[in-house]
Amino acid sequence: MYVIVVYDVSVERVNKVKKFLRQHLHWVQNSVFEGEVTRAEFERIREKIRELINEDEDSVVIYKLRSMPERKIIGLEKNPLEDII
Amino acid sequence: MYVIVVYDVSVERVNKVKKFLRQHLHWVQNSVFEGEVTRAEFERIREKIRELINEDEDSVVIYKLRSMPERKIIGLEKNPLEDII
Repeated sequence: MYVIVVYDVSVERVNKVKKFLRQHLHWVQNSVFEGEVTRAEFERIREKIRELINEDEDSVVIYKLRSMPERKIIGLEKNPLEDII
Repeated sequence: MYVIVVYDVSVERVNKVKKFLRQHLHWVQNSVFEGEVTRAEFERIREKIRELINEDEDSVVIYKLRSMPERKIIGLEKNPLEDII
């Protein structure tokens, strides 16, 4: 399946979330990652995000799609190479 | 069609983008909107975003889907009512 992950995570925890997601998905922009994952990977990602965030303060949405969606980019196309912390 | 719009727009311009998107889509989180749109609405959104952003500095990605995707929310489910500027 193909997932798009968007997150709104407090600054204290966001780098851990970003670092973890970068191991499994492609960075798209700001706080958005996406990529093809197996069901097992999906479950692992969900579980690990639960560990990394504070569920009372942070929010992560995972969109589950069958395949890579069509997309239109307006303005800059950002990419993982720019994503240096 | 169903669209998910994610944006990374400079602070000087972001409120205009947010205000415009709120007229057409549902606010999901942080810098993410989504909703069902007609083809005409989609084109209007795309055109207006081009006017509002600086294409050399900002980035907007519009995912085009056939219908509302399945989603998993981890942590808070934010909603438009919290989104007071």
